[in-house]
Amino acid sequence: RDLRMDWEREARTGMPEAVLCEPKSADQIDRIVAGAKTAGRALLLTRLSPEHHGLLAAQTRAALDYDALSATAIVPAAHGPAALIPGIGIVGAGSSDAPVAREAARTLTFCGFAAPTILDVGVAGIDRLLVNLPQIRSFDVVICVAGMEGALFSVLAGLVEAPVIAVPTSVGYGVAAGGTLALHSALGGCAPGVVAVNIDNGFGAAAAAIKIMKR
Amino acid sequence: RDLRMDWEREARTGMPEAVLCEPKSADQIDRIVAGAKTAGRALLLTRLSPEHHGLLAAQTRAALDYDALSATAIVPAAHGPAALIPGIGIVGAGSSDAPVAREAARTLTFCGFAAPTILDVGVAGIDRLLVNLPQIRSFDVVICVAGMEGALFSVLAGLVEAPVIAVPTSVGYGVAAGGTLALHSALGGCAPGVVAVNIDNGFGAAAAAIKIMKR
Amino acid sequence: RDLRMDWEREARTGMPEAVLCEPKSADQIDRIVAGAKTAGRALLLTRLSPEHHGLLAAQTRAALDYDALSATAIVPAAHGPAALIPGIGIVGAGSSDAPVAREAARTLTFCGFAAPTILDVGVAGIDRLLVNLPQIRSFDVVICVAGMEGALFSVLAGLVEAPVIAVPTSVGYGVAAGGTLALHSALGGCAPGVVAVNIDNGFGAAAAAIKIMKR
Amino acid sequence: RDLRMDWEREARTGMPEAVLCEPKSADQIDRIVAGAKTAGRALLLTRLSPEHHGLLAAQTRAALDYDALSATAIVPAAHGPAALIPGIGIVGAGSSDAPVAREAARTLTFCGFAAPTILDVGVAGIDRLLVNLPQIRSFDVVICVAGMEGALFSVLAGLVEAPVIAVPTSVGYGVAAGGTLALHSALGGCAPGVVAVNIDNGFGAAAAAIKIMKR
Amino acid sequence: RDLRMDWEREARTGMPEAVLCEPKSADQIDRIVAGAKTAGRALLLTRLSPEHHGLLAAQTRAALDYDALSATAIVPAAHGPAALIPGIGIVGAGSSDAPVAREAARTLTFCGFAAPTILDVGVAGIDRLLVNLPQIRSFDVVICVAGMEGALFSVLAGLVEAPVIAVPTSVGYGVAAGGTLALHSALGGCAPGVVAVNIDNGFGAAAAAIKIMKR
Amino acid sequence: RDLRMDWEREARTGMPEAVLCEPKSADQIDRIVAGAKTAGRALLLTRLSPEHHGLLAAQTRAALDYDALSATAIVPAAHGPAALIPGIGIVGAGSSDAPVAREAARTLTFCGFAAPTILDVGVAGIDRLLVNLPQIRSFDVVICVAGMEGALFSVLAGLVEAPVIAVPTSVGYGVAAGGTLALHSALGGCAPGVVAVNIDNGFGAAAAAIKIMKR
Amino acid sequence: RDLRMDWEREARTGMPEAVLCEPKSADQIDRIVAGAKTAGRALLLTRLSPEHHGLLAAQTRAALDYDALSATAIVPAAHGPAALIPGIGIVGAGSSDAPVAREAARTLTFCGFAAPTILDVGVAGIDRLLVNLPQIRSFDVVICVAGMEGALFSVLAGLVEAPVIAVPTSVGYGVAAGGTLALHSALGGCAPGVVAVNIDNGFGAAAAAIKIMKR
Amino acid sequence: RDLRMDWEREARTGMPEAVLCEPKSADQIDRIVAGAKTAGRALLLTRLSPEHHGLLAAQTRAALDYDALSATAIVPAAHGPAALIPGIGIVGAGSSDAPVAREAARTLTFCGFAAPTILDVGVAGIDRLLVNLPQIRSFDVVICVAGMEGALFSVLAGLVEAPVIAVPTSVGYGVAAGGTLALHSALGGCAPGVVAVNIDNGFGAAAAAIKIMKR
Ligand SMILES: Nc1ncnc2c1ncn2[C@@H]1O[C@H](COP(=O)(O)O)[C@@H](O)[C@H]1O
Ligand SMILES: Nc1ncnc2c1ncn2[C@@H]1O[C@H](COP(=O)(O)O)[C@@H](O)[C@H]1O
Ligand SMILES: Nc1ncnc2c1ncn2[C@@H]1O[C@H](COP(=O)(O)O)[C@@H](O)[C@H]1O
Ligand SMILES: Nc1ncnc2c1ncn2[C@@H]1O[C@H](COP(=O)(O)O)[C@@H](O)[C@H]1O
Ligand SMILES: [Mg+2]
Ligand SMILES: [Mg+2]
Ligand SMILES: [Mg+2]
Ligand SMILES: [Mg+2]
Ligand SMILES: [Mg+2]
Ligand SMILES: [Mg+2]
Ligand SMILES: [Mg+2]
Ligand SMILES: [Mg+2]
Repeated sequence: RDLRMDWEREARTGMPEAVLCEPKSADQIDRIVAGAKTAGRALLLTRLSPEHHGLLAAQTRAALDYDALSATAIVPAAHGPAALIPGIGIVGAGSSDAPVAREAARTLTFCGFAAPTILDVGVAGIDRLLVNLPQIRSFDVVICVAGMEGALFSVLAGLVEAPVIAVPTSVGYGVAAGGTLALHSALGGCAPGVVAVNIDNGFGAAAAAIKIMKR
Repeated sequence: RDLRMDWEREARTGMPEAVLCEPKSADQIDRIVAGAKTAGRALLLTRLSPEHHGLLAAQTRAALDYDALSATAIVPAAHGPAALIPGIGIVGAGSSDAPVAREAARTLTFCGFAAPTILDVGVAGIDRLLVNLPQIRSFDVVICVAGMEGALFSVLAGLVEAPVIAVPTSVGYGVAAGGTLALHSALGGCAPGVVAVNIDNGFGAAAAAIKIMKR
Repeated sequence: RDLRMDWEREARTGMPEAVLCEPKSADQIDRIVAGAKTAGRALLLTRLSPEHHGLLAAQTRAALDYDALSATAIVPAAHGPAALIPGIGIVGAGSSDAPVAREAARTLTFCGFAAPTILDVGVAGIDRLLVNLPQIRSFDVVICVAGMEGALFSVLAGLVEAPVIAVPTSVGYGVAAGGTLALHSALGGCAPGVVAVNIDNGFGAAAAAIKIMKR
Repeated sequence: RDLRMDWEREARTGMPEAVLCEPKSADQIDRIVAGAKTAGRALLLTRLSPEHHGLLAAQTRAALDYDALSATAIVPAAHGPAALIPGIGIVGAGSSDAPVAREAARTLTFCGFAAPTILDVGVAGIDRLLVNLPQIRSFDVVICVAGMEGALFSVLAGLVEAPVIAVPTSVGYGVAAGGTLALHSALGGCAPGVVAVNIDNGFGAAAAAIKIMKR
Repeated sequence: RDLRMDWEREARTGMPEAVLCEPKSADQIDRIVAGAKTAGRALLLTRLSPEHHGLLAAQTRAALDYDALSATAIVPAAHGPAALIPGIGIVGAGSSDAPVAREAARTLTFCGFAAPTILDVGVAGIDRLLVNLPQIRSFDVVICVAGMEGALFSVLAGLVEAPVIAVPTSVGYGVAAGGTLALHSALGGCAPGVVAVNIDNGFGAAAAAIKIMKR
Repeated sequence: RDLRMDWEREARTGMPEAVLCEPKSADQIDRIVAGAKTAGRALLLTRLSPEHHGLLAAQTRAALDYDALSATAIVPAAHGPAALIPGIGIVGAGSSDAPVAREAARTLTFCGFAAPTILDVGVAGIDRLLVNLPQIRSFDVVICVAGMEGALFSVLAGLVEAPVIAVPTSVGYGVAAGGTLALHSALGGCAPGVVAVNIDNGFGAAAAAIKIMKR
Repeated sequence: RDLRMDWEREARTGMPEAVLCEPKSADQIDRIVAGAKTAGRALLLTRLSPEHHGLLAAQTRAALDYDALSATAIVPAAHGPAALIPGIGIVGAGSSDAPVAREAARTLTFCGFAAPTILDVGVAGIDRLLVNLPQIRSFDVVICVAGMEGALFSVLAGLVEAPVIAVPTSVGYGVAAGGTLALHSALGGCAPGVVAVNIDNGFGAAAAAIKIMKR
Repeated sequence: RDLRMDWEREARTGMPEAVLCEPKSADQIDRIVAGAKTAGRALLLTRLSPEHHGLLAAQTRAALDYDALSATAIVPAAHGPAALIPGIGIVGAGSSDAPVAREAARTLTFCGFAAPTILDVGVAGIDRLLVNLPQIRSFDVVICVAGMEGALFSVLAGLVEAPVIAVPTSVGYGVAAGGTLALHSALGGCAPGVVAVNIDNGFGAAAAAIKIMKR
């Protein structure tokens, strides 16, 4: 048996088990989804590309609410969705950061939290950020998504009181390729109160934001 | 004029201005401390090594509450300290992580928060962690300090509900030298809910924890 | 002549020659397998992807026992398999580590050793590991397979008496992409008794485990 | 003979020969300065630390106008200084960037250009930048000096019409140590019109600014 | 709304908004181009590969002047092109650098500047450079495009008075793969007056050259 | 309390607790040694440089058997040493690898194992290795210590039946500085049966060898 | 005009111009080959993959002697081939290194030199090397081709009098992926007399060997 | 016994044994020199800094011809020096490269070869190179020493027929610090016929040049 779902994780840590699909075979994902259905569990699947999704069994695909932009899929809960809890906001530097911002948003709504999103407010045209500041300042926790040089993390953290969870993205080329530059900007910046998650990890940022809201 | 203190930062972001001393000349630090005294401002100075501290003017040193282990100095507030607010806890993997854990603790108490600290509970002897779990689970936010391979971040985050702020330290040698390994373990781990700050950045972890407590 | 098989390796070092297929042309592999058949030698081929396997001559494919998950192929020995020798166990952190764990298992059985395997016991849900400890403690040598931040290596080595051979895998993304992080966790950890092989090198881990069993 | 001064460089490229002292022996620097005196040439020496300066011959030191903060020395021209040409401005993110900003300023004045300098206007407190914008917008060329995550480069370039020459500094620790992060932010940012020179290369930025002014 | 075009950028910084297409979905690009048409704005799109271009809506493609070699597309201005302003020249080391040189040239002509280009004058056969020196010396600003070891940057900067904007390209293999080597040669060279932009960033070099011409 | 000794480690894993001194303060080491004396425990201390050793309390130094070459110190067991168990051998490439080889040897004898050592048999003069092969082939486990390009690991593993534990050292300069090259040679080599520990980690290699002997 | 062939290179440096095809468009290669035909010049083309070759004009392909294994093509000289000059030998570690060894061989014969080749003599089975030593010792210059950990370079250089030109190959995975490890082994090894060329650069090794033979 | 001198190396490979002193203890060097004296062997010692040299026994120092600039020491041959063999020349880019150039020169003369040296002819002022071309073209083998961006390697190799042995130096700062940039320029350049040795390895370049002369 190669699969051991950690169904107790939610009770233990407040965040339900989620499945990182990229390195798994279609057969493994089929069995995981079947297991969740059998157990009557809601389940979030991340990093499931459209091509990968296309390789799943028809029965699996029928059980999934799939979103191609964010490459996420959801096995919905038996009971319908409850009203979404407000407090977390998502701010993104460029329109190219939309997939990662959406992964965070999908995780939030899967867990019962609203996910208002403000995109394309990067620092090259800082007015776009400043006009949106009042709304951003109303959030209890800000998830900030940015690629390239990630300057938005420091600028934003210098302007708001809420904790800022930085999600560096792999958007960029040359020295900015792969997201390391944005990640390091999040970590090495001069504005205190920024914390970071892994490159392109919208899921992890949402998980941390939820834990902060729940404390 | 080469110095522009950002005294409004506290009002704007909830965290007071702090001074990173390492790259500054003794003369610059002397003038900053004098400025804080004149303005009647409390001030936190970080990464001020004993050697560097020894180069400051006698008058500056007299104004400072200096702690060599954490390399921090404080210009105390005029009004005495208030009662410390509980909720944040510090957990450290090894006794070698003490300086960074103390930097976080000094920042917390400077800002009015208690800083209970549990050190030397790294995963090589996991029982040391498990016996302390009840106390750790009582924290609202956990600052987790670890060097070397940083395995404590994932293990801890899999056991508690609170958000875990990982502070990788530069403790280690060979492939673990400099702290990059511990940092990457914090970011690339499989237990959701971990966020990271820069290597050895106890100050930043405390700043983020405070923002979380204040939201 | 571009091929010189080292048929004496087994006599000299205790491990038979094996073929790393990835960088070889189909034509070279065809000739190697034909040579083994002619010489009446059993042979292990590793890192032979399904696509690559599909390019081999029909005659070659007919001679091979191929396993797509682990990308290994075997030219079986003339004499049937003997009873497998117990003592080595394989422990894997995630279900995504299955291909590498299987490469180790295939190498072990090819060489006459049993390969009991326990997968998906990573540290994010440490109970999954603890319930399997009694079986793991019964092994003489433990091959531990893990990707991402590789925290399992240290945790496991702190719990067992047997030597732990760490096989870091390339499972992970962002700072964990490619396996360097897991490798460094294996090397830079604080629990003594861990030794490491190359990223994704299930074959090498099995070879070392066999040498340990044979000493 | 191990020294060949390129006295024709000024005629050929518009910038006089300058001497990078760090890797040279005191004996070599002594001979270079003596050669300049003999030839009646003004000369700029960079990266000459106070310790290194102390090792030079007394006669050499007497011939030099030395500045410890920027680690530069000047053999002055026979004819006194002319009026300084305006147009170039220096903007620095932190007070810790003062040495590099000063290296640029010393190079500018050595070559006959004014060097107005505005320091400590980093993005963590963006108001400090905005109040200085009118003066900054009056410059024909802006030399922007910043360490850590170098967010100032993008923010500034999004606000001014002049070309921005970014000088990343080695100020920072952890992921920001050594200046690579600031350099990459300068190169990988999203605001067009930023060009970069090497880490801590205030001299090179000044040289480029002068070439731009002279075109 | 995931798109916020910065139409005021030209007024603020002298360079019009441009669109980096690589990380954007076809749908996003379709909407951006439609927005530009509606607003009556000329627009430059960069890093739009032929495959990506083929995925755009027919209506979008009809609106674009597309150039496959440089992977750029242009929404032309309503008023026809004005006479091109001379002064900027492009010099390239190898014929393999043609795509990046063309990206710079397309950006220049889009903005109203001439773009005379001299290719394949790398230092392995330095005579090819020397015979073209008179023309190169006539430029006010030189954009120098080179991959591999990027030796041309230093050699050229030692021969001309104009500022040299180095564009390192990703042409090369082994240690030269990806363009980091050429970039570092541009930054770490010994001839002052070289400034650099990101790897393959012909667009950014043109933007900087224009800002220099406009000052 | 910042110190929690893991005295149960020996019972749990077969290897006694050891202390990595480099990142610890003299005060911490003084208290650890005092604790061991009080508890009547033998203790191994590693990476304790002569300078660091000189900073310890006189009482601590008196309790220690210190060896400067390997930078190790031992609090001896109350009962005298038993006869040393044979089977493990140490082979080193160069005389420069002596400190690391000695760290392994000291760990072995501390734990009751003999530590025959053969140094300076690197591959540049391969005869030096071949003449020692008979003795090397008599070992059950070989600890192989090498810096620079680490070619000895592969050559040795191709010649012996015993498992080879590679200890890369930081001996080397240029591309070989710091030990990464030797480490990668150990991991990326073509001779199966090599396992590696961290750079300069003679202690870890000994620990693994002992676990192998004990299985 | 984007192409300037350096036909005088042979007169100037002893090696004829060669064309690196990888980064060139099919159209560029077509024009280069046509130019060589028109000029009556023999020409070597390297790194021309089968797919790339398939995109060339039929007329171009007809003019070329193409070898898929080494990815090289030759426009033959008008006068037939002369007798090949002996003295250079090629030694390769694994059969996987055949393509790079063949690139060197094709360059040698194109330039009129013989190219005896001995493959698959890597150090994991050192006897394979030793039995071929007499022939290898007869060479004036040895081109040594090896990937993975590149241990063959040091071993060989310790056994022969001739200069050894190391060609590291990109054969390997994990820490050995891409060829950097083999390259560093060539450079950081302990046996003097090894010089290196770029990863996979069989062409450059042959060029250097020829220059050595011609001196 | 930790020392095994390879006195047969000269007979086997044409280059005498040499001693890399940096990682050795003074005691080891004392014994090595005493051994050479006893054996009546000439011996070359490299990378022996003045501080290290000062730690040797008086008797050792008396036996050595020490040169501080190159950090080399020589135990002279009993028979006096023979006439030096011409053919090898050393060309250096900057005066800062003098120590490495001298290490090469000392090795050459130790082995009986002349070492004419031309320094400070780097490409920033290319005329300095061109006026020295006739002498440089008279060499059979050229050792080219350069730091920073190492552009001299390609330029020189495009101008001479002799093989060029590149010695990258660690001269430089920022992206050029440590010598990797110069090394990569030597390897990744476009002018065939360049081979490289390790950073700062003047000794190795001389050894290779001698092997070329001897073939
Ligand atoms: N996109 C993601 N990024 C990071 N971690 C994830 C992601 N999706 C799932 N995970 C976590 O990764 C763990 C390991 O994945 P799995 O291999 O599916 O067990 C899961 O338990 C999740 O907590
Ligand atoms: N090829 C390019 N390289 C660098 N920056 C670019 C390029 N093309 C456009 N940009 C800039 O990148 C910014 C961010 O792109 P976008 O995501 O399209 O808003 C744009 O506003 C442009 O200024
Ligand atoms: N030289 C060494 N290299 C690697 N690990 C060590 C070394 N010395 C001690 N250790 C281990 O590192 C762990 C952490 O060290 P400490 O911080 O002293 O608790 C110890 O428990 C030892 O198991
Ligand atoms: N495979 C190769 N590796 C390295 N350099 C090469 C190779 N093939 C050709 N060259 C050289 O690279 C130079 C630049 O290539 P090109 O862009 O074709 O002018 C040529 O002049 C050749 O000397
Ligand atoms: Mg799981
Ligand atoms: Mg400040
Ligand atoms: Mg083989
Ligand atoms: Mg000079
Ligand atoms: Mg935009
Ligand atoms: Mg401990
Ligand atoms: Mg060419
Ligand atoms: Mg030796």
